[in-house]
Amino acid sequence: MKLYEQLVEDLTRLIREGVLRPGDRMPSVRKLTRSHSVSPGTVLQAYGVLEDRGLIEARTRSGYYVAARRSAGLRPPSTHRPDGWSTPVDVSELVFHLLASTRDRDLVPFGSAFPSPLLFPFKQLLRAFGSRGKEFDPWQTVKALSPGNLQLRRLIARRYLEGGCSLSHEDIVITSGAMDALTLCLQTVTRPGDVVAIETPTFPPALQAIEAAGLRAVEIPTHPIHGVDLDALEQALRRHPIRACWFMPTFQNPLGSLMSDADKKALVELITHHDVPLIEDDVYAELYYGSERPKPAKAYDTAGLVLHCSSFSKNLAPGFRVGWVAPGRYAKQIEQRALISSLSASVPAQLAIAEYAKKGGYERHLRQLRHTLGVQQQQMLESISRYFPEGCRVTSPAGGYFLWAELPATVDTLEVHREAMEAGISISPGPMFSAKREFRHCLRLNYGHLWSEQIEKALQDLGKIISRHTASGAS
Amino acid sequence: MKLYEQLVEDLTRLIREGVLRPGDRMPSVRKLTRSHSVSPGTVLQAYGVLEDRGLIEARTRSGYYVAARRSAGLRPPSTHRPDGWSTPVDVSELVFHLLASTRDRDLVPFGSAFPSPLLFPFKQLLRAFGSRGKEFDPWQTVKALSPGNLQLRRLIARRYLEGGCSLSHEDIVITSGAMDALTLCLQTVTRPGDVVAIETPTFPPALQAIEAAGLRAVEIPTHPIHGVDLDALEQALRRHPIRACWFMPTFQNPLGSLMSDADKKALVELITHHDVPLIEDDVYAELYYGSERPKPAKAYDTAGLVLHCSSFSKNLAPGFRVGWVAPGRYAKQIEQRALISSLSASVPAQLAIAEYAKKGGYERHLRQLRHTLGVQQQQMLESISRYFPEGCRVTSPAGGYFLWAELPATVDTLEVHREAMEAGISISPGPMFSAKREFRHCLRLNYGHLWSEQIEKALQDLGKIISRHTASGAS
Repeated sequence: MKLYEQLVEDLTRLIREGVLRPGDRMPSVRKLTRSHSVSPGTVLQAYGVLEDRGLIEARTRSGYYVAARRSAGLRPPSTHRPDGWSTPVDVSELVFHLLASTRDRDLVPFGSAFPSPLLFPFKQLLRAFGSRGKEFDPWQTVKALSPGNLQLRRLIARRYLEGGCSLSHEDIVITSGAMDALTLCLQTVTRPGDVVAIETPTFPPALQAIEAAGLRAVEIPTHPIHGVDLDALEQALRRHPIRACWFMPTFQNPLGSLMSDADKKALVELITHHDVPLIEDDVYAELYYGSERPKPAKAYDTAGLVLHCSSFSKNLAPGFRVGWVAPGRYAKQIEQRALISSLSASVPAQLAIAEYAKKGGYERHLRQLRHTLGVQQQQMLESISRYFPEGCRVTSPAGGYFLWAELPATVDTLEVHREAMEAGISISPGPMFSAKREFRHCLRLNYGHLWSEQIEKALQDLGKIISRHTASGAS
Repeated sequence: MKLYEQLVEDLTRLIREGVLRPGDRMPSVRKLTRSHSVSPGTVLQAYGVLEDRGLIEARTRSGYYVAARRSAGLRPPSTHRPDGWSTPVDVSELVFHLLASTRDRDLVPFGSAFPSPLLFPFKQLLRAFGSRGKEFDPWQTVKALSPGNLQLRRLIARRYLEGGCSLSHEDIVITSGAMDALTLCLQTVTRPGDVVAIETPTFPPALQAIEAAGLRAVEIPTHPIHGVDLDALEQALRRHPIRACWFMPTFQNPLGSLMSDADKKALVELITHHDVPLIEDDVYAELYYGSERPKPAKAYDTAGLVLHCSSFSKNLAPGFRVGWVAPGRYAKQIEQRALISSLSASVPAQLAIAEYAKKGGYERHLRQLRHTLGVQQQQMLESISRYFPEGCRVTSPAGGYFLWAELPATVDTLEVHREAMEAGISISPGPMFSAKREFRHCLRLNYGHLWSEQIEKALQDLGKIISRHTASGAS
């Protein structure tokens, strides 16, 4: 074996085993030259092979990085270009049926919006909560009124600091989950009839919230890997009286796209230039597979125009309904609105999370969760490349627990959904994710459930259903 | 002592001691004739004295009842007649400051919207919850998605049955507190720009929710004892395109008024005739001082037009944020909207309440709570009659924990509020409770806090402040 081949093998193993993770910077040429006692040319040759194999990618002026995982033969989907008109939003029965089916444990839950509840430390959370009973101060229930429990807000502020945002607990308002935060933001920065810019595709509850508030949506094309198309956004900001942007720059649902730091910065500059607030939904950010939490757009916000929303529901305590918003210049309005409308998030749930975090173990839990999701993504991608027909394109996000697949244009995923349900498999067909019911040949797949033979078998069955549709469309 | 005097004394003691409670039917003349070995004339003479003293009241064709408690010299306030135009709603800073001041434990909390947290069994609730930790099924967090935990919905359905409503658990959707339920209902039955009928005065979060939804309000005159004026409502239904009524027929906030069963029935017939849904806010119903829970308007709903909302926040578990709605014919829409918008109420909070109720003790807690609030009302009324100047009128509701006082017309309660805050006392001035900022000479007082010398002293101080304003206004 040649020197460079040995190096390729070593580095491949490190990547496969997750020592080097998607998004991690690869060791510098100089470092490898020393550690492996080889010439710089050998290192570059090895890196060339790894790049050809899609395991690493070169970034201009900053070296090599571990690539987002991708199985052989799978290309990423394309960006959809909506027609650019604003649309009144109407959420269909379909969304409700799909959400309701989440509860059906006989279904293979590729269509679910939630990861498996088995991935979360409920026993420890409940124990942390129960142990507070002895010393529980009833006035806690008054003290924890919006903006929320102080201990918990301090915990969140510390985590922001680690993520590159310098916020105090006074900049944070606790809410009943992220949806409550997002809705509060939307109601605060818009009035009925206003126009809001959203990504397309986007997640159904956003469409529903916009509908409930009587708003119109302008759909901004969103790249499956790189996120919001900033040129298209700039044009939209010029053409439409946009009163707010509602985006998910990190691990967008359903695409899984991740805007680069540079793009997030440019996004904030753009909305600041137009003086339009950005509601940043960042609920998946903790589920990164790389070495660092991606920075939120909020980190680049100097004008206080970014309302940053997140929660513990996707990474620690699903069902506890504890989220928050860091509302920037809208802090006072949001706090007032939260206090008057929902009063507070559930006090025992706030205390349980604060107490759990105090005892330590949150970071360990997060590392385990990220690793599990990363492995499950790889397993699902491998099964898809094995069982789905030619011409299917699929994302391999660097975080979260959703894949977005683009099937040949002839396939109608509403039909695929119907047939899959008959076979005991749920999926989320593309039209759910668009105010205009587009993306008919796309679907979202959840890989947040523990890998099993049943899941592999279901992907095989799903592949067969899709193949039939590909064939019939082609005939 | 004459025979009738002895009887007056005996019955007065029974009423004072709470053996006979406000709203209770007095023993029949025949029964007392036998038990006290006196003539029917003697009994009627005694009842006449008790009626003169305001301790009991005669009701046509149904005998004598213990009157709502009222201290000597206090008359009930009058009904306000708004001008009848619909109004866009705008909630002021005042409401926020008052709600925020609820947390300031240095203030005497007459202005608070909440009863003392010391009145609730938090330790037992937390213990019930913590004990579930060992056997906690993570899938609970998925199962408890809207419409909510089954055990809890069954508990609520049983309580409806006891309250005269025959509902199944399938008719109930769990929400994050009553405000979440009320907002869901409002969004379901209206569109921005619609007109909604509300009581005047009404509680500030209702005004805020109407504002947030972009609705217009028609204020219906509401009697401080008997509740919504049905004639005025009928006229309003004819004059305005009213799309929903939002009323609190039992222990209305802030008035404490209680519509009679006959009026509740007539109300439901009226809205049914006009095919207009009624959002019934019934959060104070369990806090009755009489012998029976007042029936909700929902009990008379045959057309499924009543959306009945309530919660555990006022009677068992403040801060847990667990409420519900029985939405009648809107069940499917409400369930869908709840699932998509808020997903579920906090799961641990739902489980804690269900578990606590299973262990028993809820009824005992409620009896104790009702008794405490009844005694505190009596204490506050007595202090008011001692310390407030002539010409003040005040309610003495048969449940809840609010008094509504109408001061001489020259008094500006916004000024009284300012001076009271300087003296360390919060109150809720009348203009908070009206879209048009009316009721400037009225205020709401909370008696849900444990009686103490500090509270008595604060009422004395408040009386002095009001006296100054009465005097200056008169000069």
